[in-house]
Amino acid sequence: MTASVPADLDAYLTENNDRIHDELYEFLRIPSVSARSEHKVDTARAAEWVLQSLRKAGLTAETHATSGHPIVLGEWRTAGKGAPTVLIYGHYDVQPVEPLELWSSPPFEPTVRGGKIYARGAVDDKGQLFLHIKALEAHIATRGNLPVNIIFLAEGEEEVGSDNLAGFIEKHAKELRTDAVVISDSSMFAPGLPSLLFSLRGLAYFQVDVEGPKSDLHSGSYGGAVVNPAMALARMLATLHDADARVAIPRFYDKVREWGDVVRTQIRELPFSDSEFREETGSPALGGEKGYSTLERIWTRPTCEVNGLLSGYTGEGAKTVLPAKAMAKVSCRLVPDQDPEEIGRLMQAHLDSVAPKGVTVKVMHLHGGRPWKAEPAGPLFDAARAALSAAFGREPVLAGEGGSIPVVGDFERILGAPVLLMGFGLPGENAHAPDEWLSDENFVKGMRAIAVLWEEIGTRLGTGS
Amino acid sequence: MTASVPADLDAYLTENNDRIHDELYEFLRIPSVSARSEHKVDTARAAEWVLQSLRKAGLTAETHATSGHPIVLGEWRTAGKGAPTVLIYGHYDVQPVEPLELWSSPPFEPTVRGGKIYARGAVDDKGQLFLHIKALEAHIATRGNLPVNIIFLAEGEEEVGSDNLAGFIEKHAKELRTDAVVISDSSMFAPGLPSLLFSLRGLAYFQVDVEGPKSDLHSGSYGGAVVNPAMALARMLATLHDADARVAIPRFYDKVREWGDVVRTQIRELPFSDSEFREETGSPALGGEKGYSTLERIWTRPTCEVNGLLSGYTGEGAKTVLPAKAMAKVSCRLVPDQDPEEIGRLMQAHLDSVAPKGVTVKVMHLHGGRPWKAEPAGPLFDAARAALSAAFGREPVLAGEGGSIPVVGDFERILGAPVLLMGFGLPGENAHAPDEWLSDENFVKGMRAIAVLWEEIGTRLGTGS
Repeated sequence: MTASVPADLDAYLTENNDRIHDELYEFLRIPSVSARSEHKVDTARAAEWVLQSLRKAGLTAETHATSGHPIVLGEWRTAGKGAPTVLIYGHYDVQPVEPLELWSSPPFEPTVRGGKIYARGAVDDKGQLFLHIKALEAHIATRGNLPVNIIFLAEGEEEVGSDNLAGFIEKHAKELRTDAVVISDSSMFAPGLPSLLFSLRGLAYFQVDVEGPKSDLHSGSYGGAVVNPAMALARMLATLHDADARVAIPRFYDKVREWGDVVRTQIRELPFSDSEFREETGSPALGGEKGYSTLERIWTRPTCEVNGLLSGYTGEGAKTVLPAKAMAKVSCRLVPDQDPEEIGRLMQAHLDSVAPKGVTVKVMHLHGGRPWKAEPAGPLFDAARAALSAAFGREPVLAGEGGSIPVVGDFERILGAPVLLMGFGLPGENAHAPDEWLSDENFVKGMRAIAVLWEEIGTRLGTGS
Repeated sequence: MTASVPADLDAYLTENNDRIHDELYEFLRIPSVSARSEHKVDTARAAEWVLQSLRKAGLTAETHATSGHPIVLGEWRTAGKGAPTVLIYGHYDVQPVEPLELWSSPPFEPTVRGGKIYARGAVDDKGQLFLHIKALEAHIATRGNLPVNIIFLAEGEEEVGSDNLAGFIEKHAKELRTDAVVISDSSMFAPGLPSLLFSLRGLAYFQVDVEGPKSDLHSGSYGGAVVNPAMALARMLATLHDADARVAIPRFYDKVREWGDVVRTQIRELPFSDSEFREETGSPALGGEKGYSTLERIWTRPTCEVNGLLSGYTGEGAKTVLPAKAMAKVSCRLVPDQDPEEIGRLMQAHLDSVAPKGVTVKVMHLHGGRPWKAEPAGPLFDAARAALSAAFGREPVLAGEGGSIPVVGDFERILGAPVLLMGFGLPGENAHAPDEWLSDENFVKGMRAIAVLWEEIGTRLGTGS
């Protein structure tokens, strides 16, 4: 079953390697931070860039305005009778870049160091979206056609909750009808070890605002008699876990599906070292829910994390202030079959129940996404195995993913098509942190894997002409 | 014993009222924020302003450089044989002004609304320091002399811990020898109710830095297996109090002196309403240590407060980051006989003992000051009673103060002289918060009270000529 990369496609990608990289860098230079209103124009510019790139590859393409950032839709419909249709999904928006001072090179000036392409969006997801476009271009340029019909869908709101995507898919369900959805927005388990994902965690993200006095007070003149919102917040956050690092929100685990021994055994057999993982993060020691391994904690168990804290005086030196308010960003990673809306209600009820007298607590549910679990078998999975084997020279492993791609569930639910998650990131890639990078080797091999994937899907899912 | 304000002094202050106010506003316009390096020049400018103001009043004066902000020393040594000497202490530095957007008028543009002079430093302490200069000026201008010898000491580091003051007093103990120290840097118990302070709380201020991974991580790819520093910090802060809002640091209360029934009874007899106090702060409800009234909590009990929190993502919207670090500013108000250094050691030991594995915790002791307790009797106190009665038309009450003036203890210890704390602030004055104000009525009456005080001290403490 070990296919190889066809010589003509490989030659095309090799000959055009420098130009392809230059184009990628151009794409990465656009600061398409979807969360920030000051980058609205840049985000629109990134959409336009994707549009033109699809057209240059040979697809028809157009931009669809939404109430947020636009959706770009490209199409190739002439694969021939009996050819299957594949929807490719990716996103052209990126995470905010702060704290800027921790970047070794500017986030929007792609810089290659040690085989890594450093830039915000390099791996999440511009680089992976772009390699799909180049794989399509390789087919069309060398052969004049593709072995599959293609729907290429790129959105600009993945990092802010994909608010307009599900509605768009629902509205255009007929035009978007497809045999499979392919997404490259995830990581391989290790360098040289191509991976297919069988699970994703969902997300429920909250902002918690605690308010006390109407303005900051002198901590001497009022301290001891006025309830301190920062202290109240800390005490409330401390109730989110028990001593075994289990989430202590009542009924939080009610819908959590325990994974069977087969999956747990397979996870244990992956080449993984706690001490290397610890070293990669720089943490003094690992931690987490009692009774589970590191990979189980990340792939199969839900979490509750503080993502941000702000209250009172945070500058240089000392200011003896009793803060008027305190804010926390709190988010839960979810696993099947937890539901983000239900977790939102449980979080609200729990925080209400532990809020002390003397402060008011507001919980805003900022966004969420469902967890997902694949059936790792059948012709689509076989096609992916073959494609990855051809490009990387070895069989892929099955892996879980701790992050969330909320749209995966939407695609399955609305279009009724299976989703294939094959990503080319790597551990330590800093996807949402300073110094985000994409392995150049994975970028180059990823284009080839995807080029082979269209052949394999054409053969395995096609009904013949 | 109800003296009245001598007609000549009263007339002088009345005739010069507009000019005196203009001078005060000029002083308040100088942004002498001692905590901020960018205001170093402004702080020096405020020292120079005080120097010139003392000279204009008729005193000799000079500036003493320190390793921080300068100390201004003014003198009047010709009160005559047998006249007592009084040291006046005040500070010309002010608190930072953030958050700027909560000020109704710019912090360094004094604005009078409803009988209140709004500006940073209006009450803490520029306005109160300045009224002393004007009381001196009234005597010298109308009578050519003062009934007491004066040492006027103004520092510029009160808001950052008075690091250089104790050393200065020790070095110059001989020149600073005095019969009494008078400080106006506190508040009256209520409008129209002049007050003499019998206690101050001390302070021990810390910055707590919790560090985990070497950079911010994706909360999906790492969350659940890497210890979250923001959550660790919240859990540590939550251990600082028990369920009764008592500080839970082991041995924290060992040195706390319980106040006797006499003081507790007197405190209960003061005109005070919990509901008005609550309304003034805007808090939904009051709180604090079980078993004590609001005034007891503020005046007689120690506290532990969070003054600031910062970690991870704090901007608009959602960012799914597992923060690399988290910071809290934490301070304890202390009561006799707690010692700030000892409390620092107890805090360090406690935080070390509750720090979870997976993070490193650093505790910096930023600054501290001892608590203080006066003996409210004797000729100095009697002089103060008479002066306040003359200016305000009623006997002062004894009151405690929840804030800290660390130098009070230093003066008593080094100079061996009793300290008189008579301040002209009012509840709700926002001393360390936006919209700080000084009652104009108290400013005007305060100048008169201090002018009478020199007469009363001259009579009661002088040894005759």
